[in-house]
Amino acid sequence: MKNFAVVLAGCGVFDGAEIHEASLTLLSIMQHGGVYKVFAPDTYQYHVINHITGSEMPEKRNVLVESARIARGKISPLTDFNANDFDALIFPGGFGVAKNLCNFAFKGADCSVNEDVAKAIKSMHASRKPIGALCISPVLLSRVFGKVELTIGDDRNTITSVEKMGSKHIKTTHGEVIHDHDHHIFTTPCYMLDANILQIYEGTTNIVKAMMESME
Amino acid sequence: MKNFAVVLAGCGVFDGAEIHEASLTLLSIMQHGGVYKVFAPDTYQYHVINHITGSEMPEKRNVLVESARIARGKISPLTDFNANDFDALIFPGGFGVAKNLCNFAFKGADCSVNEDVAKAIKSMHASRKPIGALCISPVLLSRVFGKVELTIGDDRNTITSVEKMGSKHIKTTHGEVIHDHDHHIFTTPCYMLDANILQIYEGTTNIVKAMMESME
Repeated sequence: MKNFAVVLAGCGVFDGAEIHEASLTLLSIMQHGGVYKVFAPDTYQYHVINHITGSEMPEKRNVLVESARIARGKISPLTDFNANDFDALIFPGGFGVAKNLCNFAFKGADCSVNEDVAKAIKSMHASRKPIGALCISPVLLSRVFGKVELTIGDDRNTITSVEKMGSKHIKTTHGEVIHDHDHHIFTTPCYMLDANILQIYEGTTNIVKAMMESME
Repeated sequence: MKNFAVVLAGCGVFDGAEIHEASLTLLSIMQHGGVYKVFAPDTYQYHVINHITGSEMPEKRNVLVESARIARGKISPLTDFNANDFDALIFPGGFGVAKNLCNFAFKGADCSVNEDVAKAIKSMHASRKPIGALCISPVLLSRVFGKVELTIGDDRNTITSVEKMGSKHIKTTHGEVIHDHDHHIFTTPCYMLDANILQIYEGTTNIVKAMMESME
């Protein structure tokens, strides 16, 4: 059974992990015969957003503690992650990826990636293990590796920033997966396109399937 | 296209809506050709639980605002609900149902149901429209209708309380659905049994399918 490490960025599309993408990634892993363990960095969220109004709330929330809501309490701090324990690494999306796992939302192409996130990505890559990234998460791989092929939706500014980091964006539609064979990286657009939950499920199904097949 | 009203109780299994059950309910509705609109009561949660430690946090969160995380901002206060607009009503589970939509977690068989939740249930029932309840949510129907047939998992205390309210618990396993034909109520155990996300998906698939078939 292939063991996936799933890294979350909080709980909620605007300041954390996108909930549908995260939940359906877990479902897809099990549907393809895998198991998973969930991780998140033990740091404060950049901010807390009221998901109805879009405005900032005067609160502080912790990424690990909020991610635990999606993981039903079964979660570990990302400092505990060891590439030897896993066959694959996957990042669901959500703005939290661009705010809490790196600062792409504010710095664009000049962003830096959370140290433990970068370490997890690099250690999996060093072992030639597959890494999956949904929605906005490919920016992490773009920042860490530079010259990669990925898909990042249809937002012009995001595409430009990714290209500035040296990466090549390949246009895709719902559920399509780009595999960068050199880096063993898989990406799919999910909610970076105007999508519904059926299309998100297509994306999580196809990316997990492609990652599984690459490990056969 | 059948239009489902989905009522959430927050965001997170221990103090709100169970996230996998909520997300997979939305997915199942669309997979069966339906559409949905999400509602939640605009009230404070009973409390906020740290989902790693299980202890209470010194915070106040609003049920509608937190539920919006699962609904990606597209949510309405339950006071806006009108049975005429919908073909079916469904309640995913999570402790939030027993803490925020009613007080079953604290009062057991003597619980009372949030006024707008009770009104939504009664108005759908008055129009003979199907009502679905996952996990712990059947306690709402038990309190509102009394003598109903439902399934509520394998916790002895919960079963006893439901029976005290006049209802009949029918033992089921993962993914099984009980249909009370008299009341047009559908229930399935989900995380009221020791379950994984595959089994939750079985539950949401089967309950939505059964509700859809009942409307043919």
